[in-house]
Amino acid sequence: MEPLITLTTDFGGESPYVGAMKGVILGLNPRAHIIDLSHHIPPQEILFTAFFLQSSIPYFPSEAIHVVVVDPGVGTDRALLYVEVEGHRLLAPDNGCWTGLIGVGQTLLSGKPTVFRLTERRFWRPTLSSTFHGRDILAPVAGHLSLGEDPRNLGPLVDDWVRLEMNPPVIESDRLVGEVIFIDHFGNLITNIPGSEFARLGNQRVQIMVGDQHVHHHVRAYGEAEKGTLVALVSSSDLMEVAMSGGSAQKKLGAHVGTPVTIQVVSPSNPTA
Amino acid sequence: MEPLITLTTDFGGESPYVGAMKGVILGLNPRAHIIDLSHHIPPQEILFTAFFLQSSIPYFPSEAIHVVVVDPGVGTDRALLYVEVEGHRLLAPDNGCWTGLIGVGQTLLSGKPTVFRLTERRFWRPTLSSTFHGRDILAPVAGHLSLGEDPRNLGPLVDDWVRLEMNPPVIESDRLVGEVIFIDHFGNLITNIPGSEFARLGNQRVQIMVGDQHVHHHVRAYGEAEKGTLVALVSSSDLMEVAMSGGSAQKKLGAHVGTPVTIQVVSPSNPTA
Amino acid sequence: MEPLITLTTDFGGESPYVGAMKGVILGLNPRAHIIDLSHHIPPQEILFTAFFLQSSIPYFPSEAIHVVVVDPGVGTDRALLYVEVEGHRLLAPDNGCWTGLIGVGQTLLSGKPTVFRLTERRFWRPTLSSTFHGRDILAPVAGHLSLGEDPRNLGPLVDDWVRLEMNPPVIESDRLVGEVIFIDHFGNLITNIPGSEFARLGNQRVQIMVGDQHVHHHVRAYGEAEKGTLVALVSSSDLMEVAMSGGSAQKKLGAHVGTPVTIQVVSPSNPTA
Repeated sequence: MEPLITLTTDFGGESPYVGAMKGVILGLNPRAHIIDLSHHIPPQEILFTAFFLQSSIPYFPSEAIHVVVVDPGVGTDRALLYVEVEGHRLLAPDNGCWTGLIGVGQTLLSGKPTVFRLTERRFWRPTLSSTFHGRDILAPVAGHLSLGEDPRNLGPLVDDWVRLEMNPPVIESDRLVGEVIFIDHFGNLITNIPGSEFARLGNQRVQIMVGDQHVHHHVRAYGEAEKGTLVALVSSSDLMEVAMSGGSAQKKLGAHVGTPVTIQVVSPSNPTA
Repeated sequence: MEPLITLTTDFGGESPYVGAMKGVILGLNPRAHIIDLSHHIPPQEILFTAFFLQSSIPYFPSEAIHVVVVDPGVGTDRALLYVEVEGHRLLAPDNGCWTGLIGVGQTLLSGKPTVFRLTERRFWRPTLSSTFHGRDILAPVAGHLSLGEDPRNLGPLVDDWVRLEMNPPVIESDRLVGEVIFIDHFGNLITNIPGSEFARLGNQRVQIMVGDQHVHHHVRAYGEAEKGTLVALVSSSDLMEVAMSGGSAQKKLGAHVGTPVTIQVVSPSNPTA
Repeated sequence: MEPLITLTTDFGGESPYVGAMKGVILGLNPRAHIIDLSHHIPPQEILFTAFFLQSSIPYFPSEAIHVVVVDPGVGTDRALLYVEVEGHRLLAPDNGCWTGLIGVGQTLLSGKPTVFRLTERRFWRPTLSSTFHGRDILAPVAGHLSLGEDPRNLGPLVDDWVRLEMNPPVIESDRLVGEVIFIDHFGNLITNIPGSEFARLGNQRVQIMVGDQHVHHHVRAYGEAEKGTLVALVSSSDLMEVAMSGGSAQKKLGAHVGTPVTIQVVSPSNPTA
């Protein structure tokens, strides 16, 4: 089969750096199929990257090699890693960006990762810049892997790495408390509250708050509500999501990553909603 | 030959949803060549999508499979369709977005479409979200088609579908009335007035109006006019277009999709231009 | 090996023109691997394009065909060119956009280019628009080249072409004067001052100015400085660069392409820094 290499960066669409990485990969392996995941990750946003990878990588065939360059620490002594988890293979800086794949919040993967630190310079470009390790280290290592190089040759096995700090949601029998962790292009607010927990409470009468504002409708699909209505539903990532039918919940609510979200069962004797 | 699958979505460049669809396709068929047409369709803009598809799909070899996800009705009972027209194959929601290909305005295709409604769940992902049928239905169906699946197995043949409502231009011997239907990245205004009709009148003395503003110059190419001049010409889609040499006609004229455009032959005895 | 064709345009991400070009190429050669370099070049910015190509093309294997459509003169009598330099092959308008590859400022290539003017219409689309030669000329020519067409058949050899005018930096024993030539997505300012010259002076006590503002720190990597600090360093293109750790130097300094940059050795007897 043809070797698949995906790219995820915060370089922006107008950047020559994307092309430089593609050139280095194809210079080593002209048969590589390069797949763009995104070059529009907000600059240096590790949390965004974590959710991004968690929502896309698990759908790929496990042979693919995923190169991630969101790397505020480039040129310092932060490590670069090869990570393998349930057959999925990533090359990424050791800044926590990939750790959403292994059990922070919802994830489709449950295996234990195998991690090597990239130290073997024979797989790198001979001249190394201090500002662009995507081109000089990650791209050539991906090229070599796609040609069949054994990842154990890339550097030593390590069992410690930076883990992303995320607040876990509060899950109680009649109350869920979480926060917005991701806002998509449509202004939909994805929270860290598991969809199954939201569905459990959603059969009862509940008060749903985003920040200090109410969301009155609980639906299954965007199109079920009238245009302009705020709705809560289970997202395609199996997390609770707040959306506005035909509009942007972000704009309507002025929400941002970190805005608190609560779902509270309303007792019939003490209605507050 | 290698199977080509193109993607057109309104997900935005920073979206993990694009990668999820690519992963699902490549998980079924790692040999598929995935071609990005755009992920920057303005959110839920069906008319934009129609012009977009009409201006790009006809140039592809007819074996290609075109997946279109601009889908405000996701999760409701709107249908998903397989469309084949002159060998071009599309997978798209039944919201009219593809019907520009078959005779609304200018189009390169004139054949009658064959349309199947997607109902056979064995070609879908086993777990179905209510908000992301691009990943859960269209991507896996594209993967199966690229492996040679017969489209007749996808669901029943249908002969009715949503058609895009578009105002046809008024075409008279000495007058053309239409409207702006598309504005490109350069601010060029593409109208629904056929290029051949515009060329017919363009040999005479004409008054050209966009909204209530005059366009004085009729040229063959952008570069023929001085910088900053508004010009009318035949677009690369063979439609009348209004542009500004070295600038944006949209900004200069404050025009938008729907702004009326008229071309009126000016009689020598009654000049108004 | 599979034929690689890269695309660099200023069409914007939402443009149907990108898809039209891909369709034309794949219609001629469905085995072509199309690689997007960028479709977000700022509209008609030749200088930006020059730096972009200089920073990406040299990393590709020399068999690749690079199609460049930044073409304000489309439809006028400006030429379209096939350029070959050290095995790298480009198709581009004759507006200077590719000449950064052959010795303006820093470049990885030093060979003499072989240039043909595209005149042989049998390799073009039969119907030619006046506004989209990317689709009608460059794309089909790229398709034919990828099928093995000899470039000498495309048109006559030429030895004159438009060269990009760029101010060379002033290089003296104790002083360097240049300007900002490129600003990347992170707001990093890349100058035309060679990295080696900057490194030579950088070991001494220097005063660094961007416009009328001081940059106090000279570092090796972004992450070496505290967040919010302006730093000067050698870029990944081996040019002097001004950056802000964890932020945008462009915003901080209000700089733009053309802003002057000076490095002056400060004598111990006459300190000015």
